[in-house]
Amino acid sequence: YDSLESVVVEETALTSWNDGPSKQKIIQFVEKTTDSSSPDFVPESKRIAVFDNDGTLWAENPVYFQLFYAIDFIKKHSPGHPEWSANPTLKAILEDDLQTALEGGEKALAEIVMVSHAGMTEDQFTSSVRDWIKTSKHPQTGKAFNQMIYYPMVELMEYLRESGYKTFIVSGGGIDFIRAWAEETYGIPPYQVVGSSLKAEYTEVDGKNQIVKLPELNFYDDKAGKPVGIHQHIGERPIMAFGNSDGDYEMLEYTTQSPGPRLGVYIHHTDSIREYAYDRNSLVGQLVRGLDNAESNGWLLVDMAKDWKIVYPNP
Amino acid sequence: YDSLESVVVEETALTSWNDGPSKQKIIQFVEKTTDSSSPDFVPESKRIAVFDNDGTLWAENPVYFQLFYAIDFIKKHSPGHPEWSANPTLKAILEDDLQTALEGGEKALAEIVMVSHAGMTEDQFTSSVRDWIKTSKHPQTGKAFNQMIYYPMVELMEYLRESGYKTFIVSGGGIDFIRAWAEETYGIPPYQVVGSSLKAEYTEVDGKNQIVKLPELNFYDDKAGKPVGIHQHIGERPIMAFGNSDGDYEMLEYTTQSPGPRLGVYIHHTDSIREYAYDRNSLVGQLVRGLDNAESNGWLLVDMAKDWKIVYPNP
Ligand SMILES: [Ca+2]
Ligand SMILES: [Ca+2]
Repeated sequence: YDSLESVVVEETALTSWNDGPSKQKIIQFVEKTTDSSSPDFVPESKRIAVFDNDGTLWAENPVYFQLFYAIDFIKKHSPGHPEWSANPTLKAILEDDLQTALEGGEKALAEIVMVSHAGMTEDQFTSSVRDWIKTSKHPQTGKAFNQMIYYPMVELMEYLRESGYKTFIVSGGGIDFIRAWAEETYGIPPYQVVGSSLKAEYTEVDGKNQIVKLPELNFYDDKAGKPVGIHQHIGERPIMAFGNSDGDYEMLEYTTQSPGPRLGVYIHHTDSIREYAYDRNSLVGQLVRGLDNAESNGWLLVDMAKDWKIVYPNP
Repeated sequence: YDSLESVVVEETALTSWNDGPSKQKIIQFVEKTTDSSSPDFVPESKRIAVFDNDGTLWAENPVYFQLFYAIDFIKKHSPGHPEWSANPTLKAILEDDLQTALEGGEKALAEIVMVSHAGMTEDQFTSSVRDWIKTSKHPQTGKAFNQMIYYPMVELMEYLRESGYKTFIVSGGGIDFIRAWAEETYGIPPYQVVGSSLKAEYTEVDGKNQIVKLPELNFYDDKAGKPVGIHQHIGERPIMAFGNSDGDYEMLEYTTQSPGPRLGVYIHHTDSIREYAYDRNSLVGQLVRGLDNAESNGWLLVDMAKDWKIVYPNP
């Protein structure tokens, strides 16, 4: 009878996942933590699941999508900023030479982010990102960027929420960039998004008191920063964590290294046909330490090619 | 028919509030924002209400309750810290001379907070606060500190949540101090608490990776810091804000200075019999600018003596 019931559940939950050990492990975890007669039952207030964004909930190739936003912003606004062409990084971007622009490393990336994210009010920035996501297309697939989300993950997050879980994004990407579209795209409200942030101030703009984003880093939500971001924003150790790169290692470690039921999951990019195949040698989403230690840490490795029936919502 | 319906609602909602303009204004605001046929209807995802804590949700006299926690912590742990007696502020606290201890102003207060809040893991700090709140009594009332919450505000927050609102605390007090007891006391989970914070790091303690609170201020959530804290944590402009002091002025301003239905509320401490009466000349919860401008800003002034049937849950 138990196994019959289990079959029924597997048929109705996670229909975009192929039957197999990954799907089974996730469903079993949810069932045992939500069944009040189970020794692993977790009260609803402690059912916290955290998700990395780039490469875990949507694609991240050939570069992080937020960088496309920044580049498009810089090109669009360059007529009002003749001084940008004196900056080698920005000049390269205006000349469509991304390789040269990124040669400056972290300093160049910071310059790109600051001119395209700071100086705006929160409302201006949100509008700017929403306009961009409505009108821009990915250079390789021609899809809207928010159509390059992973449907099996969206379905999983819905399944978790129906099971009394709270779903949070914990991303190295910009918190306000993600907030601008996460509710519509993933069903995750702004206050359940954790990410990297700029400092901000409350000041008068156009006769109205507003929040203005400043050109100074407030918090970098990556690697050991992820548990810190979770602590500051969520204030509770999650019981499930999903990531795809070594930047998520500490988040999975923090989540799973505590008593009680815990599940750490790496999404492994194995699908060169429907998406991209990469791990150890990739510029984005590099996964080395995570691959080496997933098994000994008891973490699940989801094989995108084998475990997912579809990748994007409209293949 | 409309007025009949309105009478029925007033009889079942906010029973700890006396009938009158304050109760009426709050209920009318909730009704018009939740009635889908109203021109002021607000979709559930935008129904964000923010509450200051000290003096708005619980008492704050003779000093902020968090200071009692800090003092008790310092006394309890002084045997292991002989060096504390070389510090004039800490020495005064150990000698029960609070006046001398606080003469050092903000610097003294920071010292008190750092030795009593930093250096612990998040789990140690949470346990320490929970133990304290279970065992300590207010020096004047003899009540447990979490019995000095304002029952009409707790009832109001429940009413808002039943009406599809999310209730957030936005306090100048310590975020982790409040999180330790807010869920049990107010029904507000840790991720819906915004407050002042120390920096934190993810590091190995006792062979386990943990969050440790550092002796360095991360964010001060008061005055113009409150809209910034709301922006960083909630990412959405609230539509209702409740405060009691000039430290909440910018939060009420930020909340109400935007199109659409908005409600700013000051809890005015007018009840010297059941609680405390103070505003312009108080050391805690000083309210000057708020009193001067509440009317012109269209903010509601709740008169604790007149508007509330009871103050504490068990009078
Ligand atoms: Ca990632
Ligand atoms: Ca207050």
